[in-house]
Amino acid sequence: MSQGRLLYAQSGGVTAVINTTAAAVIDTARRHKVPVLAARNGIIGALREELIDTSKETAAAIRALRHTPGGAFGSCRYKLKSIEQNRAQYERLIAVFKAHDIRTFLYNGGNDSADTALKISQIGRELGYPVNVIGVPKTVDNDLAVTDCCPGFGSVAKYTAVSVQEASLDVESMAASSTKVFIVEVMGRHAGWIAAAGGLAARKAGDPPHIILFPEIAFDEAAFLARVKASVEKAGYCTVVASEGLRNAAGQFLAEAGTRDAFGHAQLGGVAPVLASLVKQKLGYKYHWALPDYLQRSARHLASKTDADQAWAVGKAAVEYALAGKNAVMPVIVRTSDAPYRWKIEPAPLDKIANHEKKLPKSFITRDGYGITAAARRYLEPLIRGEDTPKYLKDGLPDYVRLKKVLLRRKLAPYTIAD
Amino acid sequence: MSQGRLLYAQSGGVTAVINTTAAAVIDTARRHKVPVLAARNGIIGALREELIDTSKETAAAIRALRHTPGGAFGSCRYKLKSIEQNRAQYERLIAVFKAHDIRTFLYNGGNDSADTALKISQIGRELGYPVNVIGVPKTVDNDLAVTDCCPGFGSVAKYTAVSVQEASLDVESMAASSTKVFIVEVMGRHAGWIAAAGGLAARKAGDPPHIILFPEIAFDEAAFLARVKASVEKAGYCTVVASEGLRNAAGQFLAEAGTRDAFGHAQLGGVAPVLASLVKQKLGYKYHWALPDYLQRSARHLASKTDADQAWAVGKAAVEYALAGKNAVMPVIVRTSDAPYRWKIEPAPLDKIANHEKKLPKSFITRDGYGITAAARRYLEPLIRGEDTPKYLKDGLPDYVRLKKVLLRRKLAPYTIAD
Repeated sequence: MSQGRLLYAQSGGVTAVINTTAAAVIDTARRHKVPVLAARNGIIGALREELIDTSKETAAAIRALRHTPGGAFGSCRYKLKSIEQNRAQYERLIAVFKAHDIRTFLYNGGNDSADTALKISQIGRELGYPVNVIGVPKTVDNDLAVTDCCPGFGSVAKYTAVSVQEASLDVESMAASSTKVFIVEVMGRHAGWIAAAGGLAARKAGDPPHIILFPEIAFDEAAFLARVKASVEKAGYCTVVASEGLRNAAGQFLAEAGTRDAFGHAQLGGVAPVLASLVKQKLGYKYHWALPDYLQRSARHLASKTDADQAWAVGKAAVEYALAGKNAVMPVIVRTSDAPYRWKIEPAPLDKIANHEKKLPKSFITRDGYGITAAARRYLEPLIRGEDTPKYLKDGLPDYVRLKKVLLRRKLAPYTIAD
Repeated sequence: MSQGRLLYAQSGGVTAVINTTAAAVIDTARRHKVPVLAARNGIIGALREELIDTSKETAAAIRALRHTPGGAFGSCRYKLKSIEQNRAQYERLIAVFKAHDIRTFLYNGGNDSADTALKISQIGRELGYPVNVIGVPKTVDNDLAVTDCCPGFGSVAKYTAVSVQEASLDVESMAASSTKVFIVEVMGRHAGWIAAAGGLAARKAGDPPHIILFPEIAFDEAAFLARVKASVEKAGYCTVVASEGLRNAAGQFLAEAGTRDAFGHAQLGGVAPVLASLVKQKLGYKYHWALPDYLQRSARHLASKTDADQAWAVGKAAVEYALAGKNAVMPVIVRTSDAPYRWKIEPAPLDKIANHEKKLPKSFITRDGYGITAAARRYLEPLIRGEDTPKYLKDGLPDYVRLKKVLLRRKLAPYTIAD
C-alpha cells in the first residue's frame, strides 16, 4: 500500500474500552510512522471534513487514553444509507480521503459499522481511489458474528457481575426487617448477553442472583412471582437481574407496558420499576431497584483485563492488517481454549460480519428460563477475568484524559449532512 | 471493667465499609483476648438471643471481611421505643447480656442507634448490670453530629464522583447525534451530602456535572430548564446530579409528584425519570438517566481509602475505649487540618450525637443553587482520596466473604418482638 494517512473513527454506543482500542491504533501507527487522523464524532466528522490531528496529542495523553472511558474523539449514531440511495455521500467521503491522502480507514463499531466499512471499501475501488478499510470490533451488546466476543462486553459483564454481588450482600443484610427484593435492570434490548453475565455473581448454587430475566424468554408473571416468593422464603431475599429488553407473551416490552410519566407518556428504560411494583402489589415485599444505564458501559475503573487486552489487540491488529495491505476485513477474537483460556486475533472478511447478529445461544439459559448454564459460565467467565485499573490521581479520581482534538485545516467546501 | 464478652451489632442501612469497622472490632478484641459476639440482624438478634460466636470465624475470613460490603452479621431497621414506652424490651436486652456475660455493647449505626445505645447504657446502670456501651459511627448520609464525617460516606462520595466523571465522558462522546442530557439520581432523602460529592467529578470550571439538584433548594422548573438548555448549547451536553430528596416549592418530593406505576400508584425513588421527561417534553433533548440505588452504597470495589481507614479506626477505638472503661461515648473523627488533610479519633458523649442531624452547610452550595463551593470542595475532597481495592480472585470477582455465623446456644426462653 502507499502509506498515506490513516483515518480512525468511532461509531455507535461507546464502551469502557473503545479508547483502549483507539490508543492501540495510535500507538501502533506511531511505531510504524503512519500519521493518524481521527474523525470528530465518527462518520459525521469524516463527511464534514472535521479531522483531528492526533500528532498534536502527547505520548502521555495517549497513555492515559488507554484507561479513559467514553469515545475520546466523539462517536455518533448515524448510519449511511445504501450506495444506491445516497451515492453522493460515499463520493464525499472519498473526496475527503483524497484531499487528505487518507489511504487507510479504521471504523470502530458494531454491525452497522461493519456494513458501512464494507461499502466504503467497495466505492473506493469503484472510484479509482483505493483505500484499505478495516472494521474494528466494539460493542457492549456482544452481538457481532464470527468473533468469539466483542471488546466492550467483558467490562460491562464484569461491572454487572460485581455490582450484583455487592448489592446482594447489601440486601441480604437488610432483608430480616427491610428490603427483601432487589432488581437491577441491565442493557440488552435484543439479546440477554449482559443479563447472563449477571449470573457470574453466583459462585455456587443458591448464590444470588436468584432470577435472571432474559429478553429471549417471554415474561410469565405468575411464574416470576412464585419464584420471587420461593427465593424470599428460602434465602430471606431475592436478587433479580432484568434485561431492559424483557417482553411479555404478546411481544411488548415490559418497560412500555404500563408505566406512565408525569405527562402520561409511556416511560422507557424502566422494566425494573414495573417489576418492583408488581412484587409490591402481589407479594407485599419491600423492594429496591437500580438502573445503572450508562454507568455500566463507562465503568472503566472496573474494566476486565481480558477485555482491555482484547480491545488493545484488535486496535493493534487493525493497523498491522492495513500495513500488510489487507482490505475489507475485521480483526476478530478467536478462542482456542476454554481452560486455560486462550485466544488469538485473526482477520475475518467484513461481509461475514456486516448485518449479522449473534444471538445468545439457547444452551446458555437454564431449562426453567431463569438462570445460566455451565456452558454459559464456561464462555462468560474468562471474559471478566483480571483487572485493568486506571491510575488514580491524588484527588481520588481516575486520571482520565480529555484530548486537545486539534482539527486539520479544511481543504474542501463545507458539507451539510441531510437527515 | 470486668472484661466479660463484647457484643457487636450493626444497625440501619449498611455501607461499603461497615464490615471494615466490624473487622477492626474483632481484630482489636482478639489482640486483647476479649471474646466477641455479634448480634444476628442487629438489635433484633440481641433481643432474640441470636448471638453469633465470632471465634468460629477464621483469621482469613476476618481479613476478607475488611473488604466485604453489606453488613456481614445482618443489620436491621428497628428502633427501640423509649424506656417509658417499652421498659420490658430494655430489660430483655440486659437479661441477654447477663446470660452471656456481655459487659460491652458496641452499636454500629447512625442517629437512632446512638440514641438506643445511650438508653441501654442508662438502663444497665439502673438495673445493676453495668455494661459499657459505645456507639460506633456509620452512615452514608453523613448526617451525624460532632464527628467531622461519617464512615460510609467517603466511599459513596467516591463512587458518585467517579461515576459522574465516567458517564459524562460517555455522554460527551454521544451528544453530537444522540443523548444530550444525562441525569443520575443519588441517595439523600433529607440532605444533599451525596449530591454535593457528585460535584467533585469536576476538576475545573465547566467540567461536568453541569447541574446539581439539592434537597435543600426548592426545584424551580423554569430555571432548571434554562440551565439545561444553556449547558447543551455551550458544552454540547448536560450532566445532572439529582438528589432523591428533591422537592418542589410546595415541599412535595418530585419523585412522588407525578409518575404513576402500572397500577396507578405513585412511583417512589424516581426523581430522575421525572426530570428526564420534563427535559424531553420542554426541550426535546434525547436523555438517559441512571439510578444506582444500592449499588452506590455497596460499591466496596471503589471504596475510598480515607473512608476505609476511618471505618477501621472507629472500630479499633471503640474496643479500646471499652477496655479503658469508657461508657456512653462514640469515637468520632476530628479533622485537624485541611491541607494536608489530617484527622484523629476522639471520644464524644453519645448525648451530644443522639437525635441530632448535621445539615449540609448553606456555604457549601453556590449562590445559584446548582453547584458546590470551594468550601465544600475543601471539606469533601480528602474524603474520597485513595483507593482500598479488595483482592480479586481468579474468576474476576472480588474476594468477598460470607461468614459462618454460628449461633451460641440459647440460655433464655424464646422472645417475640412485638411490632
